[in-house]
Amino acid sequence: MMFRTIEWLENGVVRLVDQTKLPLKVEFIETSSHERIAQAIKVMEIRGAPAIGAAAGMGMALAALESNAQTKDELISYLETAAQTLNTRPTAVNLTWATRRMLGVARAAAGDVQAIIQRLIEEAKEIAEEDVRMCRRIGENALPLIRPGFTIQTICNAGSLATVHLGTVGAVIRVAHEKYGDIKVYAAETRPRQQGARLTVFEMMEDNIDTTLITDGMIGTVFRDGRVDCCVVGADRILKTGHVTNKIGTYTMAITAKYHGVPFYVAAPTSTVDMETNVEDVIIEERSPDEVRIINGEYITVPTAKVYNPAFDITPPELITAIITDRGVVKNPTEEKMRKMFA
Amino acid sequence: MMFRTIEWLENGVVRLVDQTKLPLKVEFIETSSHERIAQAIKVMEIRGAPAIGAAAGMGMALAALESNAQTKDELISYLETAAQTLNTRPTAVNLTWATRRMLGVARAAAGDVQAIIQRLIEEAKEIAEEDVRMCRRIGENALPLIRPGFTIQTICNAGSLATVHLGTVGAVIRVAHEKYGDIKVYAAETRPRQQGARLTVFEMMEDNIDTTLITDGMIGTVFRDGRVDCCVVGADRILKTGHVTNKIGTYTMAITAKYHGVPFYVAAPTSTVDMETNVEDVIIEERSPDEVRIINGEYITVPTAKVYNPAFDITPPELITAIITDRGVVKNPTEEKMRKMFA
Repeated sequence: MMFRTIEWLENGVVRLVDQTKLPLKVEFIETSSHERIAQAIKVMEIRGAPAIGAAAGMGMALAALESNAQTKDELISYLETAAQTLNTRPTAVNLTWATRRMLGVARAAAGDVQAIIQRLIEEAKEIAEEDVRMCRRIGENALPLIRPGFTIQTICNAGSLATVHLGTVGAVIRVAHEKYGDIKVYAAETRPRQQGARLTVFEMMEDNIDTTLITDGMIGTVFRDGRVDCCVVGADRILKTGHVTNKIGTYTMAITAKYHGVPFYVAAPTSTVDMETNVEDVIIEERSPDEVRIINGEYITVPTAKVYNPAFDITPPELITAIITDRGVVKNPTEEKMRKMFA
Repeated sequence: MMFRTIEWLENGVVRLVDQTKLPLKVEFIETSSHERIAQAIKVMEIRGAPAIGAAAGMGMALAALESNAQTKDELISYLETAAQTLNTRPTAVNLTWATRRMLGVARAAAGDVQAIIQRLIEEAKEIAEEDVRMCRRIGENALPLIRPGFTIQTICNAGSLATVHLGTVGAVIRVAHEKYGDIKVYAAETRPRQQGARLTVFEMMEDNIDTTLITDGMIGTVFRDGRVDCCVVGADRILKTGHVTNKIGTYTMAITAKYHGVPFYVAAPTSTVDMETNVEDVIIEERSPDEVRIINGEYITVPTAKVYNPAFDITPPELITAIITDRGVVKNPTEEKMRKMFA
C-alpha cells in the first residue's frame, strides 16, 4: 500500500483517506478539528476497529491543540467533552480504549499545558506506530496456520484500510504472501456497505494478490466447491468467553464454515479484547435503513421498505478455530484460555 | 396483485411486466415476436421458473403465428428452431419442459396448419392457467405447516412475479395470510440481482403483508434472534434425490437454518421436479462478473476485479424439512419418497 490510512502531519493536521470514495477515487481529508474526526468516524470515512482507535487518539490530540486551555483542569475538561464527541459508534471498543488512554496520559502528565499537549501528540503518534508494529506481529503469529498455496476467505475489510497500515487480516495475508508468494483471497462483498468489494478487493489488487469477489450468499457454494482453505476475519470486539463481534455476515459465514469443516480464524489486535463485558451486555448498533435501501444514491427496493440493519453480529467460540492476536494465538477459545493470554 | 406477470392478449400479442424496472417503475413489454420473448428470458425481464415456463409456451405460440408455414412439417421445423432460441438459460428446467410440451402438441395435432396454430395458442394459455391453479394448490398444501402469527423468511422472488399470478412461495404466504391474517415476511436481498429487495418486497407491500428487508449476510442474526419461524424458498429444479437447485444464497440459508433448528421448506410446482438428472450432472450457470461489479449502472468495486458468479446453488435433502408442491408435501425428502410422489 502506497499510503497510510491515517497520518499525523507535522503542522497539527491529520490526514486520512476518505474510504467512502474508494475504490474509484483516492481522496484525502485533511483536518485540524476533532469534531471533523468524530464525523469521519460516524459516517465511516474511516472505519475498522484499529484505524478508529488511531483516529480517536489523533482526535484527542487535535482537541488538546484546539482547547485554548490555560490550566490542566481546563484542558482535561475540554478533553472529556471531546472524548464524548469522538465516541460516535457504540460497538467499537477501540474508540473508548483510545480516548481513555489519551485522557489517562493527560491526567498523569506533569508540566505546563503546552508540555501536556506535546505529550498527547506524541501519544497519538505512538498509538498509530504501535498499530503498525502490532499488525506485523499478528501476521507473524498466524504463519504456522497458513500453508503455501492457501486460498483465504475473508469478509468486510480488516486490511490496511482498517488499520493505520498493513491490516490485521491484511497482515495475515500479506505476511504469508511475503513468505510463500502464492496466497490467494476470496473477498465477500459485505452488504450493506460493501467494504469487501470496495476496500478489500482494492487493496489486495494494489498489492498484486490474486483476489476473487463473491456476494455474501455465495459462501456456501465456495466452501462446497473446496475453493478456499480457511477463513480469516477481523473483530470489532473479542469477549473473555471467546465470543467475537464483527461485521454483519461473519456469524453466517462461521456457521457455514463449520458445516464444511473449513477452519475459521479471527485476527485482531489485543486492544480489541474486552475482558469485562458479558456477551448478553453487548449492544449491537442498528444503522439507518437507507444503508440497505440505497446503493450509490439509488434505491434498490421500495423507498418505504421496512428494514432490519444490525451492523454487527456475534460469533460464539464453538465456531472459531483460533483467535490470532499480536500477543499470540488462542486455539479453540475458552474463557480459561482467554484469561491465560489476556488477563 | 393488480396485474398478471405475463398474459396472452387476444390479438396475438404477449404482454409482460419488465421486472428489471421494478420496483421503481411498472412498465410492460408487448410483443408478437418469439425472439423478443427469448431475449426477455435471457436478460431476466421475466424470471422465476414458472413464469419462464409460461413465457416459453407463449413464445412457441408466437413462433407458430410468425412461421408462415404451409405444411405441418414446415411448422414443426420452425417450432424446433424457436425452441432452441427460447432455451437461453441452461438451469431452467421449465424452459425445456414448456417448449417440449408445445412441440408435442404440434406433432400430435391433426388438421390444417391454421388449426394447429390455434391449438398451440390454446395450449400456451392453458399452461398459464394451470400455473395459476397450481400456485393456489401449493399454498393450500402448505397450510398445515404454517401457524397463525408465523414470520416467514424467504430469498429471491418466488412470488407472483416469478409465476403468472400468486406465486409459489408467494402462494404459501398469501394463502396463509388470507386464512390467518397475521403472516409476516423477512425478505433477503439476494445479491447479485437483488430480486428479494426489488421484487419480493414490492409485491408483498402491494398486498399489505408486513415485510422486512435484510441483506443476505444477516440471516444468521435473524435466526439467532428468533425473528422468523420458518424459511420458505422456491426452486428452479428439484431432483429425484431431493436436491434443490435455487437462487445462489439458498444453500447458505439452509445451512444456517439447520444450525438454528429453523424449518426449511421448498415450495415449487411439479413442473420443477426433474426425476432424470443426477445431482452431479446439474450445470450451474455462471453469469457475467458485471452482475456483481455493477449496481444501477455504477461500479461497487474495482472495475477489473475478478469475480465468481454462480447463479444457483444446490441444497441437499438433509437440510430440507419438506418440499411443498401442488401435488403434495414430501417431508424429509428421500429418493423413495420422491418416487412415490412424482414417478
